[in-house]
Amino acid sequence: MESDKYTVQGFKASVLEAGIKKRGGLDLALLFSEREASAAGVFTGNKVKAAPILVSQENIKKGRARAIVANSGNANACTGEAGLQSARFTTEGIARELGIGPEQVLVASTGVIGAPLNTERIGKAIPELVKGLSPEAVPRVVEAIMTTDSFPKLSLFEGKAGGKPYKVVGMAKGAGMIMPDMATMLCFIITDIAVDPARLNEALVWGVARTFNRISVDGDMSTNDTVLVLANGAAGNGNLSPEDFQGFRVGLTKVMDELSTMIVRDGEGATKLIRIAIKGSATPADALTAARTVANSALVKTAFYGSDPNWGRIMAALGRAGIRMREEGVTIWVDDVKIVEKGMGRGAEPEARAAEKMKGKEFSVTVDLHEGEFEDHITTCDLTHEYVTINADYRT
Amino acid sequence: MESDKYTVQGFKASVLEAGIKKRGGLDLALLFSEREASAAGVFTGNKVKAAPILVSQENIKKGRARAIVANSGNANACTGEAGLQSARFTTEGIARELGIGPEQVLVASTGVIGAPLNTERIGKAIPELVKGLSPEAVPRVVEAIMTTDSFPKLSLFEGKAGGKPYKVVGMAKGAGMIMPDMATMLCFIITDIAVDPARLNEALVWGVARTFNRISVDGDMSTNDTVLVLANGAAGNGNLSPEDFQGFRVGLTKVMDELSTMIVRDGEGATKLIRIAIKGSATPADALTAARTVANSALVKTAFYGSDPNWGRIMAALGRAGIRMREEGVTIWVDDVKIVEKGMGRGAEPEARAAEKMKGKEFSVTVDLHEGEFEDHITTCDLTHEYVTINADYRT
Repeated sequence: MESDKYTVQGFKASVLEAGIKKRGGLDLALLFSEREASAAGVFTGNKVKAAPILVSQENIKKGRARAIVANSGNANACTGEAGLQSARFTTEGIARELGIGPEQVLVASTGVIGAPLNTERIGKAIPELVKGLSPEAVPRVVEAIMTTDSFPKLSLFEGKAGGKPYKVVGMAKGAGMIMPDMATMLCFIITDIAVDPARLNEALVWGVARTFNRISVDGDMSTNDTVLVLANGAAGNGNLSPEDFQGFRVGLTKVMDELSTMIVRDGEGATKLIRIAIKGSATPADALTAARTVANSALVKTAFYGSDPNWGRIMAALGRAGIRMREEGVTIWVDDVKIVEKGMGRGAEPEARAAEKMKGKEFSVTVDLHEGEFEDHITTCDLTHEYVTINADYRT
Repeated sequence: MESDKYTVQGFKASVLEAGIKKRGGLDLALLFSEREASAAGVFTGNKVKAAPILVSQENIKKGRARAIVANSGNANACTGEAGLQSARFTTEGIARELGIGPEQVLVASTGVIGAPLNTERIGKAIPELVKGLSPEAVPRVVEAIMTTDSFPKLSLFEGKAGGKPYKVVGMAKGAGMIMPDMATMLCFIITDIAVDPARLNEALVWGVARTFNRISVDGDMSTNDTVLVLANGAAGNGNLSPEDFQGFRVGLTKVMDELSTMIVRDGEGATKLIRIAIKGSATPADALTAARTVANSALVKTAFYGSDPNWGRIMAALGRAGIRMREEGVTIWVDDVKIVEKGMGRGAEPEARAAEKMKGKEFSVTVDLHEGEFEDHITTCDLTHEYVTINADYRT
């Protein structure tokens, strides 16, 4: 890649191998803004929250931060008071070395749950980590946060505000445990636009609802899901006009859309990317519930894997979703091939064409419930032998 | 087996190959009571209900019936008005041949959704089916309703009421799509006890809540789930005393417990039977929700498959279940091995012992939430490569 494509004015990064990952490899990353940045975050809805989530939620309250430190190989979740101390040890160590306040450091972890984080190794690595900071290392942060990911996930948006060009660069890791109300394990976004913390948060929440909260790999939800964004204002734009704010919000969402789609494409063992779209539902909640129920059905997902347009399983999933629906109201398409009308199959010929579509790497399933005017969607993947292999053998 | 072990006074059965199953084999079964019987049924909670469900629900309203006709190979679901006509064609054909009213015939189907039922073949088979009725054929009914089942499921209870011995014989088929609010695809129970329809229904509903509604294979729920019971009174007991009713209810539930456990053991691709028990929940609903969420987590089920005491995934499932819980309140055991206390792992030694337990064919996972005094459980199985194989290739 072009060496400066993913660099952002006023941001530096550093990565190294601290010895946290059992199998070795980069496992510690630091993102640093040379000036104080507006900061916003969205965190897992799981009641079991990892220690770094609790620390970052505390530190982000003022809407300001200068650094994000992240490790892979250990989630620092279900680690009790000792885990909190480890997370704080990390933020404080980074702060001391950078000469900033510890509350200006956000922290994130991913990996195995329930094992103590090796703070000795992190403490040892911190001076080198800080010393290694460079603008060029930004895109390498993804490498240090990967666990079962098979490819690095980076996205760039370039826009203009107040006549000044700015960049939004996002980096993410995903793979398993990808479900509702937060879908990536970790996503960090940096931008040089000038935007106040309240509006930054508004844009982030808006975008997350449309991207990370609209994907699902296996219906599970992590204890560590985190999306953080830092905006350091180095672009030198003035106050954001409504149009420029709208442009930024769209750009930020585009970055999160690309990253969240990559996460599904790289779902554990996934071979296909499927967009489940629900139309004509009685309420907005019904549309989302229907999409999630279909997207998370093990029977539907294995049929996707087998390129089988088994619409009976989709009907059965809709029927147990707890939504308003009438069997005879349902129409189903695979891409543009209508396979169900008025709740009944349209026969072998359209099914054969649908099966052909399903052999591809990407297709859509669209359901019209004919109950009302609302719609929603979930992007998901298939359930494969490889998913079982990966997850039956993750720790051992 | 002893030839008369599963026979019940006053009941006859018949099975044959009508040509409904693509791959051949027995696919049509009839159960017949020589006298009118009390009848009760519990049906799928899915809003998409197969045609035979709608017809049986109608016919069972009076609480009386004399016959059950069932086919495998075709679910007669999502088949619209034509499907209803096919189901009625079947009940009417059986009634005519038996010389009884069509409303005295209950009907059930299992197999592929959305394909039209071949009534020509059923019509042709009915005379031979009725002609073949014999007491000895009762245990063969299971053979004719199996789809992906790997073994026949039969259970017997023998009791006494008013000094008279009676039998309860249950037969079931299961496999996939085994989840909430009705767990078997099909279960038929016959008994010669004399019991009025209202009390029979009371006993059935009580038992189903404790058995079929406490198992889960993959979180999906079928459009065809049916439990039917016929009690023909041939045992000659008088009015049931409270003690005798209680004895019958327990016996009926024992039969359903055995059958439902067999269904999980024979879950598609399952290699292990796991009982998820939740204790100390704040409400009864929380206990059941927690048990279901853990039992249906793809990550937890693949860890079971891999004999991995990955309690972090159990914690994460509890955390997203929407129940009242505090991370630090959670204790988890595998069988009698405590692996989590106060929300934290107890280390490598108990985990190694738990892993040994998990290598067996049956084990339990017990969670104490320490929030209150309620408890519940779900019996489930692991998620395996074979599950994916079966379901990626069910129709094609």
